[in-house]
Amino acid sequence: MTKLMAGMIGLGVMGRNLALNMADSGCQMVVFDTDRQSVERAVAESAHDGQPRFRPVSDLVEMLAALPSPRIIFLSVPAGSIVDQLCDDLLRAGADKHDIVIDTGNSLWTDSVARAQHYEGRLNFFTTAVSGGEMGARTGPSLMASGDFGSWQRVAPVLHGIAARVDDQGRQVPRLPGQATVAGESCATWTGPAGTGHYVKMVHNGIEYADMQLICEAYSQLRFGLGLSMDAVAETFERWNEGPLNSYLMEITAEVLRQLDPDSGVPLVDVILDSAGQKGTGMWTAVSSLELGCPAPSLAGAVFARSLSARKSQRLEAARLLQGPADKTGPVPTVSELEDALYCGKICAYAQGFDLMLTQARQQGWTLDLAAIARVWRAGCIIRAVFLNRIAAAFEADQELAHLLLDADFSAEIALRQKGWRQTVASAALNGIPASGLSASLAYYDGFRAGVLPANLLQAQRDYFGAHGFRRVDEPLGEYHLEWHATPRSLTRRH
Amino acid sequence: MTKLMAGMIGLGVMGRNLALNMADSGCQMVVFDTDRQSVERAVAESAHDGQPRFRPVSDLVEMLAALPSPRIIFLSVPAGSIVDQLCDDLLRAGADKHDIVIDTGNSLWTDSVARAQHYEGRLNFFTTAVSGGEMGARTGPSLMASGDFGSWQRVAPVLHGIAARVDDQGRQVPRLPGQATVAGESCATWTGPAGTGHYVKMVHNGIEYADMQLICEAYSQLRFGLGLSMDAVAETFERWNEGPLNSYLMEITAEVLRQLDPDSGVPLVDVILDSAGQKGTGMWTAVSSLELGCPAPSLAGAVFARSLSARKSQRLEAARLLQGPADKTGPVPTVSELEDALYCGKICAYAQGFDLMLTQARQQGWTLDLAAIARVWRAGCIIRAVFLNRIAAAFEADQELAHLLLDADFSAEIALRQKGWRQTVASAALNGIPASGLSASLAYYDGFRAGVLPANLLQAQRDYFGAHGFRRVDEPLGEYHLEWHATPRSLTRRH
Repeated sequence: MTKLMAGMIGLGVMGRNLALNMADSGCQMVVFDTDRQSVERAVAESAHDGQPRFRPVSDLVEMLAALPSPRIIFLSVPAGSIVDQLCDDLLRAGADKHDIVIDTGNSLWTDSVARAQHYEGRLNFFTTAVSGGEMGARTGPSLMASGDFGSWQRVAPVLHGIAARVDDQGRQVPRLPGQATVAGESCATWTGPAGTGHYVKMVHNGIEYADMQLICEAYSQLRFGLGLSMDAVAETFERWNEGPLNSYLMEITAEVLRQLDPDSGVPLVDVILDSAGQKGTGMWTAVSSLELGCPAPSLAGAVFARSLSARKSQRLEAARLLQGPADKTGPVPTVSELEDALYCGKICAYAQGFDLMLTQARQQGWTLDLAAIARVWRAGCIIRAVFLNRIAAAFEADQELAHLLLDADFSAEIALRQKGWRQTVASAALNGIPASGLSASLAYYDGFRAGVLPANLLQAQRDYFGAHGFRRVDEPLGEYHLEWHATPRSLTRRH
Repeated sequence: MTKLMAGMIGLGVMGRNLALNMADSGCQMVVFDTDRQSVERAVAESAHDGQPRFRPVSDLVEMLAALPSPRIIFLSVPAGSIVDQLCDDLLRAGADKHDIVIDTGNSLWTDSVARAQHYEGRLNFFTTAVSGGEMGARTGPSLMASGDFGSWQRVAPVLHGIAARVDDQGRQVPRLPGQATVAGESCATWTGPAGTGHYVKMVHNGIEYADMQLICEAYSQLRFGLGLSMDAVAETFERWNEGPLNSYLMEITAEVLRQLDPDSGVPLVDVILDSAGQKGTGMWTAVSSLELGCPAPSLAGAVFARSLSARKSQRLEAARLLQGPADKTGPVPTVSELEDALYCGKICAYAQGFDLMLTQARQQGWTLDLAAIARVWRAGCIIRAVFLNRIAAAFEADQELAHLLLDADFSAEIALRQKGWRQTVASAALNGIPASGLSASLAYYDGFRAGVLPANLLQAQRDYFGAHGFRRVDEPLGEYHLEWHATPRSLTRRH
């Protein structure tokens, strides 16, 4: 077997860590960056027993010469025009149609689709979305690769080498910097044609927003609804993390809640300003759901919740002026009911995310393997959780499963736990504790399972003022219109 | 005073009705359409005492010759490239920089901004968003005009002539086809530079989606929560329409609910398929709110509710599989509590829409007169309502009012009515009746008035896994980061 060899262009923290990970996993790395210091730092860090493992080159011509053809070249550069520029530079330096150029940045998925078309026949433009941040990049990210299948087959050994690994139980296998690839199932997968990987990663982030929002609301209920101390809340999250909610986010929540402010000694969370930042991918996901007509209120709601939190000074003004409920002695949920609420809310948020991928896939003519996607999210990325085993199992058990809530296991689970969810949402409403995510998820669930929605009234209104027409329950194929403004009103069939 | 004279290009139903309205209001009309039949129909309909009032022309050169310079020419054509094409054709036919070309179609606001720039110095590109559908166009639409102020001054007499009118109480003054302009305050206004009018109209539609969704949820609760008959529900809406909820949408809801199916004799709403259509402007509004980081969950939720309703067959499958609450004997709200819920939900939806306009205006450097916008929505358009008088009053009373919920009257109103709103949302959650709009509005209200949100926990999580940093409540200007993965964990100030 020939030794793996690849190039890395861009040695910022992500590129450096990915390249170090590749070196650890046995891949020979040729590296390049226009910034001299970044090159020096990366080469120094690559040293093993005093010997640098990276071979730096001074330009792209030299990189192409150093790599065996067909070449495998990773780009780790900011999203945008610099990706196109580097592809053009590589072509000018002598790259050819057999070479594979892999964008590992945070590109917009539509840009990736356009690039694959643009470079077709000249080079193999390939993408790999990397989830897990700088730590994941160093010791095991979750990787969503996309591009042509032939390129995937050649790149796969490198990506499987660096990806996070899960054990038989679907739990992440720990790995340290400098350690070679560990045993276990790899969290790298090929999702389809170029762009699909970035779309899938975008939806991952949308789900992450919703998951974090739900956790925040559960915290809020425990702390301000049930009146638990910070330690008791942390303990609750630790206990919950041993059940079906077990996940990286639950684990770090408990840890974060236990953290004291080194300056004042009070809980750190209490001295942090409650004004959330966001970097755009959650927003992109919500926009995509709107554009596709695919309902994802829990995902969009989490984006809005962050925006609302960022209006701190306006909220303080509102807090002085706007009244809450006069009687705040409404019923509060038990800790166990809250756990049920969080779990049900979480199922709905993930169901919306997977629905979105399926809907986009239908729209674009992609074939996404949702089970495989759930499996690569079990380790390396932020939403990693044992829970994803169950999602993978649902899509494996029924290849035609059109919606996660239609899976028998998940629906049974919700049936069992819905009482606590409903109590929690009702309690939040009565006591004035904001619970946008838990309540949006519940309204989604109840809307989804409603055989009849009041959209019939809405269609009648639209026909009244805009002559938009409607279909009939007794003949859903025809379109009808009532002459609302004539006397007598007559019904006409349009087509 | 010289007689008003204008051209109309495009004689589809909207263009024809606008031109007929202009003729009724005393404006001499020169009309053109490439479709002969449309011209003939329009000219025939324009006849008064046997004399056609429209002067048809056979091309744009003839139109320019027929109009006194500087010319006023309206376009009523589909949104998109045909608008650019007509502007170019007019320039080729001899239009000059003094002429005003007014796009009355459903253009995307960003296209209008681009067109105004593109034609600057060559012609006065102006836009007028028309609300009220074909009926409004014929006898009095709500008009949101935008472009340079000089053009507005010249076009205003035509627009004021055709616009809907309100009386002293802010109610629409009825007007029939053929009748000249009636007395009252005109519902045409200049909103600012080109594009602002279409943006404002877009937000109008977003609010309309939310208003309709809230009405549908109230209907749903009356019918399926309280178990009222269709007639009793209609009667309730009629009664509510006499109070603060008085509006066109409430009025037509009662009327629609009373309507029987001419075929079967059962209530028409019951034979209409509960699968809602949408034409995109509600979705654009929600997308804009996400892109601006301006929370509008009630508006986005209404778009999602329509999308969910459109999945009829999937919902039927879900209805068979997914369980509702075992015990459906939870408390139900009274009719009066429901009225309060609808009113509070409505205030929040409108507050989100006005907030969106204000946020976009800040972003774009526009000066939007929100009171004037509320006033022109009082008649002609779908959301026309006496309620808009109160919104206008709020923005008039405080020119700096940053959010409708910060108005003393509205906040007092909600304080008075919130109990019923909370009961309604709690009841919907416990009884399994979907109420996405009412509950999203309530969560928005409670989030908005929350002095402290759990976004502090969220910021800690983001700092833990992504080193995104956070601000401190005791020093909100600095940015901090905790070295979560070091021993001991130390706090660093970044800048």
